[in-house]
Amino acid sequence: MIKRRLYSPGPTPIPPDARQAMSADIDYHRSAEASEAVKECARLLKTAFQTASDVAVFASSGTGGMECALVNCFSAGDPVLAVRSGKFGARWVEMAQAYSLDVQPLEAEWGDSVDPAAVEAALNARPETKGVLATLCETSTGALHDIRALGEIARRRNVLLIVDAVSALGADEMRMDEWGVDALVSCSHKGLMTPPGVGLCALSGRAAEASKNANLPRYYFDYAKNAARFAKGSPPFTPAISLVYGLRASLETMMSAGGMEASWARHARLASAMRAAAAALNLRLFPRVPSNALTAFRAPDGIDSQAFVERLRQNHGAVFVGGQDALKGLLIRVAHLGWMDDFDIVSAAAALERGLSDEGYRFSPGSAVEAAQRSLLNS
Amino acid sequence: MIKRRLYSPGPTPIPPDARQAMSADIDYHRSAEASEAVKECARLLKTAFQTASDVAVFASSGTGGMECALVNCFSAGDPVLAVRSGKFGARWVEMAQAYSLDVQPLEAEWGDSVDPAAVEAALNARPETKGVLATLCETSTGALHDIRALGEIARRRNVLLIVDAVSALGADEMRMDEWGVDALVSCSHKGLMTPPGVGLCALSGRAAEASKNANLPRYYFDYAKNAARFAKGSPPFTPAISLVYGLRASLETMMSAGGMEASWARHARLASAMRAAAAALNLRLFPRVPSNALTAFRAPDGIDSQAFVERLRQNHGAVFVGGQDALKGLLIRVAHLGWMDDFDIVSAAAALERGLSDEGYRFSPGSAVEAAQRSLLNS
Repeated sequence: MIKRRLYSPGPTPIPPDARQAMSADIDYHRSAEASEAVKECARLLKTAFQTASDVAVFASSGTGGMECALVNCFSAGDPVLAVRSGKFGARWVEMAQAYSLDVQPLEAEWGDSVDPAAVEAALNARPETKGVLATLCETSTGALHDIRALGEIARRRNVLLIVDAVSALGADEMRMDEWGVDALVSCSHKGLMTPPGVGLCALSGRAAEASKNANLPRYYFDYAKNAARFAKGSPPFTPAISLVYGLRASLETMMSAGGMEASWARHARLASAMRAAAAALNLRLFPRVPSNALTAFRAPDGIDSQAFVERLRQNHGAVFVGGQDALKGLLIRVAHLGWMDDFDIVSAAAALERGLSDEGYRFSPGSAVEAAQRSLLNS
Repeated sequence: MIKRRLYSPGPTPIPPDARQAMSADIDYHRSAEASEAVKECARLLKTAFQTASDVAVFASSGTGGMECALVNCFSAGDPVLAVRSGKFGARWVEMAQAYSLDVQPLEAEWGDSVDPAAVEAALNARPETKGVLATLCETSTGALHDIRALGEIARRRNVLLIVDAVSALGADEMRMDEWGVDALVSCSHKGLMTPPGVGLCALSGRAAEASKNANLPRYYFDYAKNAARFAKGSPPFTPAISLVYGLRASLETMMSAGGMEASWARHARLASAMRAAAAALNLRLFPRVPSNALTAFRAPDGIDSQAFVERLRQNHGAVFVGGQDALKGLLIRVAHLGWMDDFDIVSAAAALERGLSDEGYRFSPGSAVEAAQRSLLNS
């Protein structure tokens, strides 16, 4: 009788239409019907990315989408700047090193968001820099970055802005073309409400132009080939066709519920309620500027967050996650991402209370639930 | 009332246990349960590959598995020999070129299988060659290659033997360790009876050793990191977890039905029956040495194979495939791969008769069905 409730920042719950689409008999990916589904998915992804560019769709994780951005935009030895304020910023640095880019990490405290002025200063100090690698939501800390401001800087200086929006696409405002983002990366299993297995990457016209001279080797993650052929319904390699059917259905659900602006607004509302719940329990929000994809707060003194989330999952079915790398044991993270509604947030608050109560943490029972519900009814 | 029957050489039909496994609520991939499933899947894959090495499991297509083999085994400029006797041999050449290997194509007629003596001669002519890129079943022609013989040559000369077994793993005998294969590549959606989206690659001890000095850049497709962590139930990046659950269930089905030898024997039996059906209709088998994964034969004069398979699919639901690249319009290919039994083959023969009858091709009605059934009852 333990019901599992998924509040992890990926994978996230799947809407019924998508589940149904994925449970159909498996289809031959070159049939006329599958080709139509592929094309429609590609078309909807342009709206999700807020871009006129074609989106490349890979059988891969989000990391594969990141790799697509790097190998198509740069050449070995290119100087790039990578914002590192958590595990996923660190991944940009590692990946750039693996591809022999001349990467300069720009450190920000974990939990902090990089100051755009610091990016500008770093570019001043190294004017030959060709690209900035950034993260919309640093999932390891829950921090949101000001991509719009970074876009302005990148445009002024004519450097490529590469953005990992793996966890926050659909949750936080993200306007690829309008903000001047040159490579935008995401995946299926976070805000896009589909199981893991599809990585996504779109390039701006400038990035696509730059890719013609970028000499890093690429084959599987070749943007031009994948994006153009996906848009025509004829992927270069076998797509994860069942997941593509699911993704199409989830995108249709999202678009019929008001599209991206409605999705951003809904996530903002749910995130506010979750933050209110945490505040009511005197829990300290970790990021200075929180993303609406997830809420990360410090575990109370004396509570190991990894043990806490493991017990909560085992005993009560609610799947929160702990901290990563340097934050192991210290952070509790609760995602409100994708296929989530008001009552899910009230349940998350209830689960949080239950878990803390089991640990002997002192608080007024019902206070988090009440705070969440008050926030939701008032917004 | 048109029932779809999938005889494409990937994707292939999915057994009920795997469908059920994949229809479960999506799980957090770092939970204890998911970690166990990942570990068990990794363990079963070693049997499927007939190797003591760990198998790397990627969210990718089979092509991603091929890329894993290349980028982990070689350095830019390395001289390699690639057997090219169809579209997938050609893919090895293209990919090796994309990664700046010094690749020498060894041509064999499409439909033919490379003569091991020709490989030996090519190695004599270029003794500095570091690797041979080969294909177990060249899916575009249905031809089987003698990997055991290539393994003997590769061992004698101390070159790495890289084998694409994307379509034939489970269908044709393939003993990675015993035959001395250094990198074996496959995927989820052919003989392993799971939807597309999982690419696989195992390296021999020698290849893993060579990979330490191989300087091609790699991150997503890094073998050592992926294989070791998958074996421990803790993949480096988010795995396609629903597909991994499906793959585990399909592998369990395969193992409980007698394992790899039983699977090879079953495919041999089904393939014989399908070839008997084609022969009864006076259709000319295309490959000189056919794989047991699929049967490829020439379309009768005056019948365009692409139009033929499209009409058969539209009107009768049976999904055969036509030819690829140079063989477009010329070949009809029928897979008997994965979750297939005797009655599926009789149905395939019936569909073939129906399609040819619709085209006005002359034959004795029932002859293919009878030949298939006779072959099955006698074997």
